[in-house]
Amino acid sequence: MKALVYHGPGKKAWEDVPNPVIKDPTDAIVKVEVTTICGTDLHILKGDVPAVTDGRILGHEGVGVVTEVGADCKSVEVGDRVIISCISKCGTCDYCKAGLPSHCKTLGGIGWIFGHLIDGTQAEYVRVPYADNGLIPLPEGVSAEQGAMLSDILPTGYEIGVLNGAVKSGDVVAVIGAGPVGLAAIMTARTAGASKIIAVDGNKFRLDRSRDFGATDTIEAGDNVVQALRELSHDGLGVDVAIEAVGLPVTFSTALESVRPGGHVANVGVHGESVEFPIERHWINNLTITTGLVNAITAPELLEDIKTGAIAPEKFVTHQYPFGQFEEAYDTFANAAEQEALKVVITNLE
Amino acid sequence: MKALVYHGPGKKAWEDVPNPVIKDPTDAIVKVEVTTICGTDLHILKGDVPAVTDGRILGHEGVGVVTEVGADCKSVEVGDRVIISCISKCGTCDYCKAGLPSHCKTLGGIGWIFGHLIDGTQAEYVRVPYADNGLIPLPEGVSAEQGAMLSDILPTGYEIGVLNGAVKSGDVVAVIGAGPVGLAAIMTARTAGASKIIAVDGNKFRLDRSRDFGATDTIEAGDNVVQALRELSHDGLGVDVAIEAVGLPVTFSTALESVRPGGHVANVGVHGESVEFPIERHWINNLTITTGLVNAITAPELLEDIKTGAIAPEKFVTHQYPFGQFEEAYDTFANAAEQEALKVVITNLE
Repeated sequence: MKALVYHGPGKKAWEDVPNPVIKDPTDAIVKVEVTTICGTDLHILKGDVPAVTDGRILGHEGVGVVTEVGADCKSVEVGDRVIISCISKCGTCDYCKAGLPSHCKTLGGIGWIFGHLIDGTQAEYVRVPYADNGLIPLPEGVSAEQGAMLSDILPTGYEIGVLNGAVKSGDVVAVIGAGPVGLAAIMTARTAGASKIIAVDGNKFRLDRSRDFGATDTIEAGDNVVQALRELSHDGLGVDVAIEAVGLPVTFSTALESVRPGGHVANVGVHGESVEFPIERHWINNLTITTGLVNAITAPELLEDIKTGAIAPEKFVTHQYPFGQFEEAYDTFANAAEQEALKVVITNLE
Repeated sequence: MKALVYHGPGKKAWEDVPNPVIKDPTDAIVKVEVTTICGTDLHILKGDVPAVTDGRILGHEGVGVVTEVGADCKSVEVGDRVIISCISKCGTCDYCKAGLPSHCKTLGGIGWIFGHLIDGTQAEYVRVPYADNGLIPLPEGVSAEQGAMLSDILPTGYEIGVLNGAVKSGDVVAVIGAGPVGLAAIMTARTAGASKIIAVDGNKFRLDRSRDFGATDTIEAGDNVVQALRELSHDGLGVDVAIEAVGLPVTFSTALESVRPGGHVANVGVHGESVEFPIERHWINNLTITTGLVNAITAPELLEDIKTGAIAPEKFVTHQYPFGQFEEAYDTFANAAEQEALKVVITNLE
């Protein structure tokens, strides 16, 4: 089969590799219909994720059809159309039972293994461990493109942004960073009942798009973001919830300084360096700060939201390419701001 | 009357001052029976709290008898024996209604005003604003010394440590710092069902005492605290909850590094400088970090725990002095480690 293979920092190739085979009786093989590219894939290509080694097939998002199942698969059957969750899980360890498969102990403490510790979804076929747990049936009426947004980004924005931030009816919510994950937080904060959702970004295209995802207000990144956010809050004291969806010290600081006493800072961004926490001012502020890798356990709930029309994940898809044009797809996604790209979907036309 | 008056950094005096009078119809006047000294009072005396100005009567903890009530007091009556909550509250602003009177908007965003923005409890009499909200009836069978521990330290350890840390049945809990507030967290973590409570401190007396408050294990502060805490956790991954009750960068770091993925860090300590948050490692760890000033809304619940014997706040009281020996009482408390002091109670013998 063909697959997109990582060959060390800066190097990748769409090349011939052996087809995956069932290794464990709980495995399934899925023929990939659509896959997407995540910001994490770009980090990997920069060499930021040393656990990813030469020869690894990239990708952890996608929708496909089950072509083979191991002897111990119970719910998954050949022919099922499925969403491939970015998080694999044994389903029986204490982390999985507690709703934290992102730290599945059986998998070594990390549920994100596709395109990381095992071969991923940017390929014609992919082996899925614990297939009964990691594959979500794609319901009638939900497209493959919509479904692929439930592999990672929509659950990430919802679980790590909106749910960790404890967004509740009437809240004023700031979302710092209106890239795909920030937009996912915006889209799901609306369904959680936020009265005001303020998108902050340095890119005008993204700010424009954010309104279509549910943002009620937008602020262009700059010097006075904290002040502008406070002015948009109920009483000038600050927003109820700030969702950090960038991963830089400056945006973390903006999130922290813009919440009111008793507020929540939900960090979603992937950070590359330490941040300062001015706890000499914040010890008294009754803040809650959360971090996290997605568990992707809300995909079924988000599927219901798609069916009712409460969320419309097809809005993420700005660019589509066929398999074989991965280079072009990555170039577009790597220059997302200039290309006015949100999510890039790559489709197997065979 | 006599009162302990602050006269700028390093200066205080037990001196004659005018008796307090009712200013607002929701005020009451309380004759103080017992009061105590808090670490915050020592900070004030160092000049760390500039909002406290020359002439302010210190103190925010105590038990007494109501001697006068304003025209709008409804539940408080002359002759009532009461616990004086360290947090004042209007009871009607959105923060008070949300259970966060620590940020009462009517009081300017800060519910801690005794011995800070208005005269405090280290005096023969004290004026109590919003007396219906800020005075808690002292039930029969609860001593004044026990009650005084509910003004601040027991609610602080419980609300900002145990409740913010979401301590649940079976949890392994580390309490970093076994001073009075750390011991309050230890005492109440036990009632919350923690399976293991590990006290960490540099002082052997406190570590010894911590076992009597409910600690199951103790670790002397040093280089390998994080490793030692992990070894005491369920599976070596770290403790479920770490309660920081010191207020230094090194102890905050110990708390942060000792919790497992999915764990909670509840900061109780009052910090004087910024800390480093290595979010490049922790963004993925599904952590919850909380900070806060006590709301003191759990005093009624803690009173029930005293009645059933689940907690025994008299254990905090290591030293007692009569009114008039405030100098000696402060000296003892300021040298608590050498003096083997926990809480120092000062009693009005008249």
